[in-house]
Amino acid sequence: MKKILLATTMLVAGASIAAAEVSLSGSARMGVISNFDDGVAANGDESDLSFTSRARVQFNMSGETDGGLSFGASFRADNAVGANSGDAGSVFISGAFGKLTMGDVDGAAQMATGHVAGVGLTGIGDLNESTFLAAGDGVTDPTALYEYSAGAFTVYASVTNPVVGTTTGGSFTDMNAIAIGAKYTFGDYAVGLGFENLSGVDTPVATLVGAVDDTDLDHVVLKLSGTVAGFNLQGLIGQADGLLGGATLNNEKQYAASVSYTTGALTGTVFYTDDSDLGGTTAYGIGASYDLGGGATLAGGLVKDHDADNEAFDLGVSFSF
Amino acid sequence: MKKILLATTMLVAGASIAAAEVSLSGSARMGVISNFDDGVAANGDESDLSFTSRARVQFNMSGETDGGLSFGASFRADNAVGANSGDAGSVFISGAFGKLTMGDVDGAAQMATGHVAGVGLTGIGDLNESTFLAAGDGVTDPTALYEYSAGAFTVYASVTNPVVGTTTGGSFTDMNAIAIGAKYTFGDYAVGLGFENLSGVDTPVATLVGAVDDTDLDHVVLKLSGTVAGFNLQGLIGQADGLLGGATLNNEKQYAASVSYTTGALTGTVFYTDDSDLGGTTAYGIGASYDLGGGATLAGGLVKDHDADNEAFDLGVSFSF
Amino acid sequence: MKKILLATTMLVAGASIAAAEVSLSGSARMGVISNFDDGVAANGDESDLSFTSRARVQFNMSGETDGGLSFGASFRADNAVGANSGDAGSVFISGAFGKLTMGDVDGAAQMATGHVAGVGLTGIGDLNESTFLAAGDGVTDPTALYEYSAGAFTVYASVTNPVVGTTTGGSFTDMNAIAIGAKYTFGDYAVGLGFENLSGVDTPVATLVGAVDDTDLDHVVLKLSGTVAGFNLQGLIGQADGLLGGATLNNEKQYAASVSYTTGALTGTVFYTDDSDLGGTTAYGIGASYDLGGGATLAGGLVKDHDADNEAFDLGVSFSF
Repeated sequence: MKKILLATTMLVAGASIAAAEVSLSGSARMGVISNFDDGVAANGDESDLSFTSRARVQFNMSGETDGGLSFGASFRADNAVGANSGDAGSVFISGAFGKLTMGDVDGAAQMATGHVAGVGLTGIGDLNESTFLAAGDGVTDPTALYEYSAGAFTVYASVTNPVVGTTTGGSFTDMNAIAIGAKYTFGDYAVGLGFENLSGVDTPVATLVGAVDDTDLDHVVLKLSGTVAGFNLQGLIGQADGLLGGATLNNEKQYAASVSYTTGALTGTVFYTDDSDLGGTTAYGIGASYDLGGGATLAGGLVKDHDADNEAFDLGVSFSF
Repeated sequence: MKKILLATTMLVAGASIAAAEVSLSGSARMGVISNFDDGVAANGDESDLSFTSRARVQFNMSGETDGGLSFGASFRADNAVGANSGDAGSVFISGAFGKLTMGDVDGAAQMATGHVAGVGLTGIGDLNESTFLAAGDGVTDPTALYEYSAGAFTVYASVTNPVVGTTTGGSFTDMNAIAIGAKYTFGDYAVGLGFENLSGVDTPVATLVGAVDDTDLDHVVLKLSGTVAGFNLQGLIGQADGLLGGATLNNEKQYAASVSYTTGALTGTVFYTDDSDLGGTTAYGIGASYDLGGGATLAGGLVKDHDADNEAFDLGVSFSF
Repeated sequence: MKKILLATTMLVAGASIAAAEVSLSGSARMGVISNFDDGVAANGDESDLSFTSRARVQFNMSGETDGGLSFGASFRADNAVGANSGDAGSVFISGAFGKLTMGDVDGAAQMATGHVAGVGLTGIGDLNESTFLAAGDGVTDPTALYEYSAGAFTVYASVTNPVVGTTTGGSFTDMNAIAIGAKYTFGDYAVGLGFENLSGVDTPVATLVGAVDDTDLDHVVLKLSGTVAGFNLQGLIGQADGLLGGATLNNEKQYAASVSYTTGALTGTVFYTDDSDLGGTTAYGIGASYDLGGGATLAGGLVKDHDADNEAFDLGVSFSF
């Protein structure tokens, strides 16, 4: 539902429309939500129903060099300040050599696999999402991502910003993540495989550069997905080995799976995730969405955080413009 | 002066233009202002003349479902971060059932009545504005607002976000406002009537949920407006009764009135307000504006804050795009 | 490469296109940079290579009154909050009387002269820039700038916001800058001359209004530029006299010069600046850019901060939309 706002050059009949341009797209949603209760009595019961709404606009820029390279950039209006410093949005250039993107982009392992399907109007805590090292807090954007596609086969490689570490309050943080991935699509099926490594000083206690790195963690992740007779099936398994903040992770695994069924305008989804051994939680959810046409969708879901014995649900309408 | 930026689908001759789209509008102003002096010698005399300018852009999104429901959202670029969390801008869906809006919207009593006319380039402190409980600081957005129109008659109902209270620094705040209103328009005249109630814990001292509410305040407000022989007359009266932060308000009243006269491109306005018994002040102002055409207006005004024995004025040009 | 997004009124064949409108333009860049090393061992070596990227969008608004005055405003999306208070972006009205602009605008001396050419993808610290009093930290926006052109001759006058000083933490700051300038263009040559004065309380120690001003600084600046046989030459000299924060500046001078050579799509630039006597540094740089067409440019540069014995470089692609 992205709308292209026209550059003047496009109005000249027969003229080239390759000129650089800025277009707008947007999204919004409104509904009700019961948040996860934090269990602190003094904070009340967050699981009581409350309202939820939001509205967003995205800027989409595109152009083409005389030599036929495509380039562009995009960011959301609420991320405009971050996009000005490379912490949000992204910039790309692409050609026969592939596509190079910089900014707030996913790592290569996540690009090749991704999350299983989520539920609800708001994502309800996004507990369907798996853990990827290149998306961790210790690393710095802009991340550089390279993609190359040959037919149904796409390879990815990424490096987070190799900026020098920062010293804050007597502690020193210097983390970096590199990743590679590959995705193969055949008919209604796809398989993605990724590898990523996070290294550096994670527990920030050293005040001198050159302190012994306490983090060197590998993560291998595989995802299979396919659509059969209206059912979309997705399954992910990941395994992490190495040092994280001085603690040893020994073949710690994460799992995620989702099944969605679509009939007409209606789609139902269930998911299960367990990334509790990688700092996450075990959760499952069920939800449904109904396409009202014109960019509007009625959606709702229920998610259970099994480890915290806590649940939340939402219901409402979402719009794309 | 809202400008519609075109979606590509609109260029196809004869095609439907019901597709979702994002458009832009804007406003700006520049001039001089003498602010209200705060009376603190060390801060100098704020009533000395200074420059004032600002520029704004608003995103307007609209669409329609296959079933004929209209939906949309809007927010200002400078409020993009707030719009992403429902604290600014708004989202709506409308149909035969009426219109439901969520976000930073006025309460139902204010929608049915509104403020009397103000003066000046900048509003000069907006002292023409009356007090409405649903716009108070203790309540939380997104607010939900329902409207239904039948001919010249429109009814409104609103509820601020019934989110659980927040505990900060040993104190607990949990406020909510509900409101209803009705407006009837006949020819050049209109009458609006609103009722609103603010309840909860207002003086945040209790650290336990379930503390006795110290606020339960009712507000009834009536506004009459009409245009006769070039004169636009507006009058508002409101009355508040109940508990506010443990203090009792006993039939406390507020008043506001404005008269505007338009001849050709020139409009002159005077106003008087007194919401001093509801936490405001007594003030009056006079101003004029001249329509320069094309979206430009020359405007200026003078406002006296009677209770603070303080005045301020401004003069400049404002633009809409 | 500014793209005009169309207002609906522009689609009506033969109709006036004078209606107010909002358009969008944008820019982005991506590459690598080695920052200036701060020399603090605990912070690591900032001169190691890191990624740099950013994306920006600008709103451009324009209109025309019935009487033929042009007006408009512009600001960047990441500056939307500042533009709402006059601290960023700008608003203007223009006609036979000249052009009046308010907002975050350069002072008159800087408008008449400007900086010599810089280098690199990112500007690399913008060390090519000279010092102008009206751009100092102590003054307040919106600044008002007046311009009037008669043929090849343009005059400028500016005043920073004469707002009352602010008292913060027992100190008082009240600074103002006024400036005038003139620029004359003849063929491929131009000469600009500017004068500016900064006055007020600069070292904020006085807590009472009326404290003796400790700043009264004059700055005269001259700039010559011209293009000969593909070489663009720019030279600037400035001299400051007076009191700055209680310290006496006695005929302190600044210098800047740049040479750029363009052949086909390639432009090479070198610059030298020395504003060390006005609080800056001595620096020189060299860089090149190659126009890829369609709004894309390949650019890189190397800058040496001579006083700090420190250097940095960058390389990448920049885009305009």
